[in-house]
Formats: sequence, structure tokens, C-alpha cells
Amino acid sequence: MKREIIHALEKIVGKAQLATSDEECACYSFDGTGRSFIPDAVAFPDSPGQVSAILKLANRHRFPVIPRGAGSGMTGGSLPVRGGLVLALARMNRIIEIDAANMIAVVEPGVITGELQAELAAHRLMYPPDPASLKFCTLGGNAAECAGGPSAVKYGVTRDYVIGLEVVLPTGEIMKTGVRTEKGVVGYDLTRLFIGSEGTLGVFTRLILRLLSLPEAGETYLLTFSSLRSATGLVSTLLRSGLTPCTLEYMDATAIGVVRDRISLPLPDGTQALLLLEFDGSRAEVTRQRQRLEKILHGHDLTCRRAGNALEKAELWQARRSISPATFDIRPDKISEDVVVPRSKIPELVEFTSALGRRYNLTILTFGHAGDGNIHVNIMLDRRDSQELDRGLAAKKELFQRVIGLGGTLSGEHGIGITKSAFLPLEIDPVALELMQRIKKLFDPANILNPGKIFPAT
Amino acid sequence: MKREIIHALEKIVGKAQLATSDEECACYSFDGTGRSFIPDAVAFPDSPGQVSAILKLANRHRFPVIPRGAGSGMTGGSLPVRGGLVLALARMNRIIEIDAANMIAVVEPGVITGELQAELAAHRLMYPPDPASLKFCTLGGNAAECAGGPSAVKYGVTRDYVIGLEVVLPTGEIMKTGVRTEKGVVGYDLTRLFIGSEGTLGVFTRLILRLLSLPEAGETYLLTFSSLRSATGLVSTLLRSGLTPCTLEYMDATAIGVVRDRISLPLPDGTQALLLLEFDGSRAEVTRQRQRLEKILHGHDLTCRRAGNALEKAELWQARRSISPATFDIRPDKISEDVVVPRSKIPELVEFTSALGRRYNLTILTFGHAGDGNIHVNIMLDRRDSQELDRGLAAKKELFQRVIGLGGTLSGEHGIGITKSAFLPLEIDPVALELMQRIKKLFDPANILNPGKIFPAT
Repeated sequence: MKREIIHALEKIVGKAQLATSDEECACYSFDGTGRSFIPDAVAFPDSPGQVSAILKLANRHRFPVIPRGAGSGMTGGSLPVRGGLVLALARMNRIIEIDAANMIAVVEPGVITGELQAELAAHRLMYPPDPASLKFCTLGGNAAECAGGPSAVKYGVTRDYVIGLEVVLPTGEIMKTGVRTEKGVVGYDLTRLFIGSEGTLGVFTRLILRLLSLPEAGETYLLTFSSLRSATGLVSTLLRSGLTPCTLEYMDATAIGVVRDRISLPLPDGTQALLLLEFDGSRAEVTRQRQRLEKILHGHDLTCRRAGNALEKAELWQARRSISPATFDIRPDKISEDVVVPRSKIPELVEFTSALGRRYNLTILTFGHAGDGNIHVNIMLDRRDSQELDRGLAAKKELFQRVIGLGGTLSGEHGIGITKSAFLPLEIDPVALELMQRIKKLFDPANILNPGKIFPAT
Repeated sequence: MKREIIHALEKIVGKAQLATSDEECACYSFDGTGRSFIPDAVAFPDSPGQVSAILKLANRHRFPVIPRGAGSGMTGGSLPVRGGLVLALARMNRIIEIDAANMIAVVEPGVITGELQAELAAHRLMYPPDPASLKFCTLGGNAAECAGGPSAVKYGVTRDYVIGLEVVLPTGEIMKTGVRTEKGVVGYDLTRLFIGSEGTLGVFTRLILRLLSLPEAGETYLLTFSSLRSATGLVSTLLRSGLTPCTLEYMDATAIGVVRDRISLPLPDGTQALLLLEFDGSRAEVTRQRQRLEKILHGHDLTCRRAGNALEKAELWQARRSISPATFDIRPDKISEDVVVPRSKIPELVEFTSALGRRYNLTILTFGHAGDGNIHVNIMLDRRDSQELDRGLAAKKELFQRVIGLGGTLSGEHGIGITKSAFLPLEIDPVALELMQRIKKLFDPANILNPGKIFPAT
């Protein structure tokens, strides 16, 4: 990056808020994919005005600008794949307003999701989206990727809660979208065009969030099954019977095998699958759901444990929470995909991935959000073994083809970033793909904002 | 419209499916606004291919094409304001698929909303959006306007249920957007960019809808108040106390006065406001809501009636249902606006409209969806009296300014169309407005699809 640009950036954000050393730049070269691309510099702006000035500068000098929250993304959305300037939004982390009467919060993009949730709980309010990374991920990043989480099965994803934005366009203009009311249909829905656009259409500098009342009660269940089919079959039955779980997580036998030694809870021998189930709502509603659940489970071949207190709840969650780190006991690397299929197709998908693993001689484990069909498929491998890597990549391609064949989608909550961009044409038809690229060009004619993401290289 | 074009259109849809006579064209000149613009012709296509061929023809010959569902829109979205061809989608009215296991329906745009709902009820499924016109409005029109209804307070609006589309672009290309799964974040969210775009960005030829389980029980209450403040104040209290009504409708004293003679139910003398309240869900949940409601209402100065059966329910709804036609007892015309304010601002808005009526010597009545702040303000007048009309238009302008000042929005569910386009800059900032117009131009370079809508005339 030229001296002249560095000086101009220092002028905008202040010398102390611009990092250019190799050590500092290395810290902003990673994300949840484990891949690394070193930026030329990292800026820490603290206002929309500074973000705007940076983007105008980038347009003049044609350098890439890559917005970044906590860097916890799973598909490379915040990686500076072409170098340039990382725009670290961590300093813009104020909760500006909690309007309890209207159940609205206004926040800056760097607010950590879990911290907002804790703050809201004190007002007996809730912001539902709960990605696994909620203790460190940011609301700006959540909005850019349209993050989900276990609660999505009942409450939906980020797009269902962000109702307005302040955005700096790639060309530097600052604008507002959306409303701070429950309803609003004035002009095109730019808010939702920005949500999930993976930092390619604008930089969010303020978010208006709708909130819900905090439920008064909740219950957690762990079910274990001696056959995979009975677990996946139960998912549809539960949801079709009018139960509304706020968590319905699933793990297959391989996943269970991996965590078995890490958890305090003894699981029955021969456990082939596990469901983690939660209800929330009023006390009366939770009781009713429990009664209905017991009726449905009666006669099924499974074990059912209910958490009696917070400690037991944590114990039941332990298996699900340990799975991601535990996978590395198998192999040092993984290809992790968050595909979605219609719920009724989960058994087919899971059987397909087992066969796929056998065929490619790879350990493939599946777990995730069974309630909405969003299954995390982990293909375990060692990237240093080029043959194994090739087999993994071939398996990933077959997985994606199968998912599309089952009426599914390549990503439920992680986005496309760089890890799936080559596969976008599998799902998106050519007319829509071209239209998306024309929208990108309309917003960002110089292609300076987060270039090289989402779209396949041409 | 030139002979040559008429012939080409006849070739596309067949002679029997093209109307050009004055009588037939007159039938397609109206909508819910009561205004009339005669089209040059009306085509009744029955496939995406026909729609595509028509749009390509329109691009060649530069004539306007105006998509139309049932013509029940409230802001002129389906009016052929510049003549041209009305694209009547009523024939594309098949329910293509109801996938009960995955709670998804696939429909054509001409399906009547209420007919789908009746069909779904047989499967114990629900498509929640319930505009007042649900007995005749179409799902395509609902999607184009992002329609709401009383149930929005609990269930949200059309955008929350349309997860995928088949769209014919203004330039004639046919494309697919979205998913048929609960989650999906692949590429830009074109689906929601189309929803609420009022027929200006594309013609929907197929919609994928997510469904819910039909609730097993419901209860209806009518509350009457001797003061307006106590009614509007109660709305926030109810919602903050964790109650989740699926209807929370409100009527002011003027509205009550208008319907009093049309309903069988005797209302207490001095009734200044009325709330219609419904809960649904499991039996246990409805009971709990009733108990909590009774606790909250205890000691309040109001009367409360609960419907014991379907007949009594219809009786309680009678007041709310009669209001729109009954308003014409006051004056022959009205300016009807569906503004939204943050719920806590409803008392201020309602007091403002009373004062506004006195100041302009006009009867203004308010009713609507108090639960989400979406208040229907009806300014009654006689359009033949030009002075009265001028006063009405001046009152409308002041109303909009006040709504924006209260943090609200110009439309919650009716859209902008032609009746509010001049006021769009009150709400949408200039950068966003320009961006929307550039998006329109990107999709529709020849400006042939529903021209003259949403954006202020330049």
C-alpha cells in the first residue's frame, strides 16, 4: 500500500487507529475457515463519517476494503483475499438505545451478540438469533452473513430481526434503510437486500433490531436412539404434531463417538443418534409441550433425559457444544458445510453422507439444526495429504449436488464467501446470478468493497 | 395501441385471452382507491412463457405492462396510469403443491388468499397473512404489496412467508429466487427485494410459501373503554406483559359512532374506544392467556365480552368488519392511510388526528392494527367539493409529517403506489431514493413494467 494512502488513512482515523505492521496485520488475516490472507493495513474507524471517508479514498486509489466484525465467519467473508485494507468495526460497539416500550434496540455493528442478549435479559427482552459463536461474534457480522443458530427453528434468523440499517455504500454515501416500527412497506426492501450480502454491498454502521419478550420458562431434553432412522423420523413427527421446540439439534453416531470421552454424561451403548430438544414460553405452554412430547415418545425405542436445573441443562448441552472442537481428534482439518434440505429429506441426506464417507474413505460426521433441515456436514481430513484433500473436495462436490437434488440449499447460515463460490451456479440460475452481479456493480462500480466473495471467479 | 401489437399479443395468449373493447378495458381500470385509468388492452396469460413473450414485445414497442391480481390494492399499484396493457394473472390460479411434511406450498400468483387458507386448513396447516380482502385478493398481489392484516401482530406479514419465487423480469427473462427450505443464505436476497416492489421489478409467476401448523384453539374478546387513553395505553401493557394476541384491533369513538347502528351488539353509552383481541395456540396456552388477560384487566374501567362460540365471535368482529363500508355514511369519499408509529406513540398519533380533524373541519376516524402500531386513518370528505378536498389533502400532508416525526412510516401494508409517491422523500433519504430508482432502471431499462408507481414524478 502506497505511503500516500497510508498517510491519508492516518488522517481519517488517527495514527493510533491504523495498523500496518506485519504482526498486527497477521492478526486480521484469519477467520473461522482457518485460512489466512495478510492485509496491507487495518483501520479501526469509530464513525460512519470515517467509514465514508475511507471508502471514498479506496475508490480514488482502487484498493480493496474488507469489513470485519469478530472474524468468526465460516466461509471467508472477512478474509482480505486480494490484500487491501481491513475495516475492523470492533470499536463501534455501543448499544445506542433499548426501547423497551416498543421492543426495539439500536446498536452499532461491533456489539457482541451475546452481550446485547445479556443486556436485554435485564429488561426481560430477547434478541433470538444465537450463532454458536455468540460470545464473541458481532451483530454487524451476523447481519452481513444472515446468521442463524439453534433457536432459528422457532424464532427464525437474523433477517427476521434487523428492520433498519445505517449503511455506508461502497462509494462512500451514508444512507438509512428500513423502519423502527413493526411494519413498513415503503419503497424497495433495501434492508433485506443488505442482510446476507456478506459485506459486498455496504458497511453497516448502525442496526435497528426488533425484540421479543423473554419467555418465562424453558426445558431441555436429551434423547438417544439406537437407530438413526428413528431419530430423523421423529423430527418431522414432532414438528407436525404442533410442538414448537426452540432447539432441535441432532448428532449422528460418528459425532457421538467423537464426543463420548469428553462429556460427563454416560450414553447408552449402541447409541446411533441423539436429539437435543428445548421448549420455551409461558410455564403453562412448556408444561403442555412436555405432556405432548411424553405422549409422542411413548413406545418409541429411545432414552429421554430432562434437565432439572441449569447445571443439568449445561450437561445435556455438553455433547452438542463439544462437537466442533472434538472433531479434530479424528483428523487435523475439516471441510465443514451447513447445507439445508427439506426436513423430510434429512434421513436421505444423512444416509447419503455415510455412504459418501465409505466411498471416499473419509470420516464424515453430521450434526446440527435438524428442526429446520440445516445439517452441518463435516468431512474430516488432513490438508497436508494432497490425495486425502482431493478426495475431500470431490466428496464436497457430490454432497452439494445431492443437496440441490433433494430440493435443498448450499448454506443455511454461513453464507458463500470464498469456500462455496465455485458452486454457486449449482443452485442459482444463470439469470439470477447475472442479476446479482449487476446489482453488485451498481452498488460498487470500482469493485473495492470485499472483492472476490460470493461470485465464482470469471 | 397499434394493430400490429394487438396481433402480436393475440398470437401470444390467443385471441380469446385478449380484451380490447371499451367495456372490458373499463373493468380493469379500477382498484381499491376508487380511481380509474383505462388500459389499451387486457391480456390473460396462463404461463411464464406467455408473460415473458409479452414483456419482450413491450420492450420492443415500448408500451406499459401493468400486472394485476384482484385489483383490490389500496394505493393504485395495479392502475394503468399511462395506459398500456393490463396483465391479468387471474387465470394462473393453481395450487401446485402442498407439502405437508415440510410445511411448504407452491402456488401460482392468481390463487385467492382465502382459498389457499381454506385448502390448508384441511391439512391442519396455516398461511397467516390475512388482509381484509382475503376473500378475493390474490397471493401474487399480496406479495407485490407485502400485504399484512390483523394477524401480523403475532405472525408477521407476507415477506415473512414467501421464501421463493419464479419471476419474469421486465426484460422477459424467467428466473427463480430463494429456496424451499426453512433457511437459506445463498447470494443476494432477491426474493425479498421483489416482495413489496409493487409490480415494478418483475411479474411473479410462482410463489413458494412457508406454512405453520394450524393452532388448535382460539378466543375472541371485545373490550370497550370510556376513555381513548385507557384503550391505547392498554395496548402496550398487554404486549409488554408477555401476551401474544393474534389480533389486537382498535377503533376510536368516531369509528364506533359510524358502526353503532349497523351492529347487533349494544355498546355502552359513552364508549370512546374499542379493542378487539384474539389469542390462538394450544388449548393450554389460550387458557393461560385468558387468565393473564383477566388479571391485567382487573380494576380497569372497561367492559369485556368473550365470544362463547363462532356466532358470538362473528358478532364481536361485526363492528370492526363494518367500519370500512360504514364510513361512507359520513361522506361519499375518503383519504385512507395505513400509517405506522411505534406502539408507544399511538396515543399521541390518535390525539393529533382528532385535533387535525377539528382544525380542518373534517371528520377523521382512526381504527386498525393497534398491536403493531399500524393505524388506519380515514379522512372523510366529498371529492366534488374542491375546498373540502384541498383541506383533506392538506390534512394528509400534516398527518404524514407527524407520523415521520413520531418515528413512524407512511405505510404498513398498502404500499406507496400513486397515492403516496409524492410523499416518499419525507421518509426515504435522498441516497436511498436514488439507489432504489437505479435498481428500477437496472431491472427495467425501458421502464415498461408498471411505470409511474412508487417514485415521485420528476
